[in-house]
Amino acid sequence: MDLRDFTTMERFSTEKFQKIGLFDTPRMFCDLYCFEPGQLQSPHTHSDSDKVYAVLEGRAEVTVGSERAQVRAGNAVLIPPGSEHALRNPGPERLVVLVFMAPRPG
Amino acid sequence: MDLRDFTTMERFSTEKFQKIGLFDTPRMFCDLYCFEPGQLQSPHTHSDSDKVYAVLEGRAEVTVGSERAQVRAGNAVLIPPGSEHALRNPGPERLVVLVFMAPRPG
Repeated sequence: MDLRDFTTMERFSTEKFQKIGLFDTPRMFCDLYCFEPGQLQSPHTHSDSDKVYAVLEGRAEVTVGSERAQVRAGNAVLIPPGSEHALRNPGPERLVVLVFMAPRPG
Repeated sequence: MDLRDFTTMERFSTEKFQKIGLFDTPRMFCDLYCFEPGQLQSPHTHSDSDKVYAVLEGRAEVTVGSERAQVRAGNAVLIPPGSEHALRNPGPERLVVLVFMAPRPG
């Protein structure tokens, strides 16, 4: 069975936020993103894919297009195709986010 | 922004497990499944889609094909297309699972 214990897979770096792959298929991927306080995923866009950020630990400042929201553990955000988005950890805690994207970018 | 606080969306019924839709697009869906102890999602198969079960609270007994595993909060399982799968809450706690499926079955 394709089982992951993501509580043991968290990994942080003072250099930049860490992406840890959980599942990767021709149709979708699922990652764990781990941010130290102050770290950022820079604004970017996926032209054809939906993306979900589900915050597991800590708090995130999420920007989608011209909107910005504070998102905490237990919240999820959908980013539709073509929407520029970014995610920042305002701290003071570490931030862990479960990320789903489909379809998988080629 | 398409934001959901899934901690406030949990819903349980003594009749059967509850599916609560978080996001639904032409490409994927994301649901919250809520199980009382003993409740089951019966064995079934999706012929063309990947599905991820990410356990948020409680414990699950997950069956994929001929394999069965105990899956706890902080664990995720990938079910590939064509694999029969089922999920049961062995209790004694309630079980909450974040579910992703892509591509969205037509």
